Amino acid sequence: MNDRQRISGVLSPVVTPFTSDLAPDPDRFARQCRWLLSQNVGLAVFGTNSEANSLGVDEKVELLDRLVAAGIDPARMMPGTGCCALTESARLTAHAVKAGCAGVLMLPPFYYKGVSDDGLYRNFAEVIERVGDARLRVYLYHIPPVSQVPITLGLVERLLKAYPAQIAGMKDSSGDWNNTKAFLDAFAPSGFDVFAGSETFLLRTMRNGGRGCISATANVNPGPIAKLYDTWKGAGADAQQARLDEIRGVFAKFPMIPALKAAIAHYGNDPAWRTVRPPLVALSADQSNALVAELDRKQFAMPGL
Amino acid sequence: MNDRQRISGVLSPVVTPFTSDLAPDPDRFARQCRWLLSQNVGLAVFGTNSEANSLGVDEKVELLDRLVAAGIDPARMMPGTGCCALTESARLTAHAVKAGCAGVLMLPPFYYKGVSDDGLYRNFAEVIERVGDARLRVYLYHIPPVSQVPITLGLVERLLKAYPAQIAGMKDSSGDWNNTKAFLDAFAPSGFDVFAGSETFLLRTMRNGGRGCISATANVNPGPIAKLYDTWKGAGADAQQARLDEIRGVFAKFPMIPALKAAIAHYGNDPAWRTVRPPLVALSADQSNALVAELDRKQFAMPGL
Repeated sequence: MNDRQRISGVLSPVVTPFTSDLAPDPDRFARQCRWLLSQNVGLAVFGTNSEANSLGVDEKVELLDRLVAAGIDPARMMPGTGCCALTESARLTAHAVKAGCAGVLMLPPFYYKGVSDDGLYRNFAEVIERVGDARLRVYLYHIPPVSQVPITLGLVERLLKAYPAQIAGMKDSSGDWNNTKAFLDAFAPSGFDVFAGSETFLLRTMRNGGRGCISATANVNPGPIAKLYDTWKGAGADAQQARLDEIRGVFAKFPMIPALKAAIAHYGNDPAWRTVRPPLVALSADQSNALVAELDRKQFAMPGL
Repeated sequence: MNDRQRISGVLSPVVTPFTSDLAPDPDRFARQCRWLLSQNVGLAVFGTNSEANSLGVDEKVELLDRLVAAGIDPARMMPGTGCCALTESARLTAHAVKAGCAGVLMLPPFYYKGVSDDGLYRNFAEVIERVGDARLRVYLYHIPPVSQVPITLGLVERLLKAYPAQIAGMKDSSGDWNNTKAFLDAFAPSGFDVFAGSETFLLRTMRNGGRGCISATANVNPGPIAKLYDTWKGAGADAQQARLDEIRGVFAKFPMIPALKAAIAHYGNDPAWRTVRPPLVALSADQSNALVAELDRKQFAMPGL
């Protein structure tokens, strides 16, 4: 891989469709991925908003194979591959690399809390060594509100020193701009690609040397987010950012994953999308109606879905 | 299964031995289980202290099969089977039931935080339905300091109503006696078996209608803990409890899982036991020496190891 062509821009942690008996639905998944690509948004499949951690590793391997078989370009994919068990992280990561994925978004092992940077370093190093493939590009996934296990500046520094070709960047879902800024200042100048964890921080991230964002709401508002990425240097960027924030603010009033699925179900006229796997719960009819009513008031649309 | 013969007493979340290349070591694991059984302690394999969440589901299936093949009695086992993905929880639970295990200790799905009791109910219900075996006995695992996802009184009440034969009890690792007491008061009289999450609460748990404890330090101090369970109505019980607390207090000064393994390595004269999987880190030589020195000062021993 030519690293000057590393993946960048806006990616969606693609929501995973389930059948009524809670099995993943590969055909509906492939259709959604195709729509996102048509909106100029890449595919961070198996992210937090994909309910990836409600899928078994066998299910993720199978789903990835089905996407590739359906003709979805793996060079536009950054699947989540970080599991609690390093054997599973290594298996899923190796599979993604062999499939030709642009990179992998890697959670730290997230069951044990209060673990040391030394232990996290050993985890990531062991996965990289086991995969043993020069094509591997790892994006570290910092999402302490959910994982409760942070990625620190010191950990990134140590990993970059040991694996400069493999450690390609990070996604910062801390929700704390000061944290994103610290990583941008420390590592972006040497080619470490920082992605904001939501479009809320897209413009600031781009103005500070970042490479894009990977955002829940890129599932439902992909075109306008991708447009800000393409035109962030232009005069209208701040107004675009404000409009993105307005739409995201509507979704943020509801449980995010069920709300994304409710919107896709409604605007795509495909009620099957409402299904979530436990422990999540779908929006109630009242919640769905309230979400859609507010989105309609803001002239929200999902063109081409 | 005759429910009057449900598993009770002291169980150990058996620490999992790894080879130098971090693979599980089934022979060493079976030897350890045999020793624990000889000390009158049951086998809560694949618990938090087993580094179970650093093992893949395939590895757990294989290890369980190897234990049974080695002649370890599954009627003395309560393997941990709760994963983030309900498909994996169902697979591992079904495997444990088919193997003849006395019960399973089930974590809630622990990646997504702030989930509702409704979502957790659906998770456990779905696993029970999928396993679909009258022999299944589920012990709910409440360990909010690690899982960050609690098991509430309301959730237990709802599950007991729907699955009175399957929902057999719980392990309370909250570290909060008031919480354990609330579950004992609410559910023990109707036959719900509450296990304390450590021997610290063993005597109080027994005096309030509980059924035993499942404790990290039952890996290293099994005989004395089992003896208190057997003699808790006797005159010496409070003194026994104080002695147990003293030994546990030594281990609690160190990272628990590496300390358990360091003690087994030292007192069993088997250095291979020191190995932990990332993200954990083994005790340093200085830490090991300090641990052993303090245990020796307290005349601690692991007879028969």
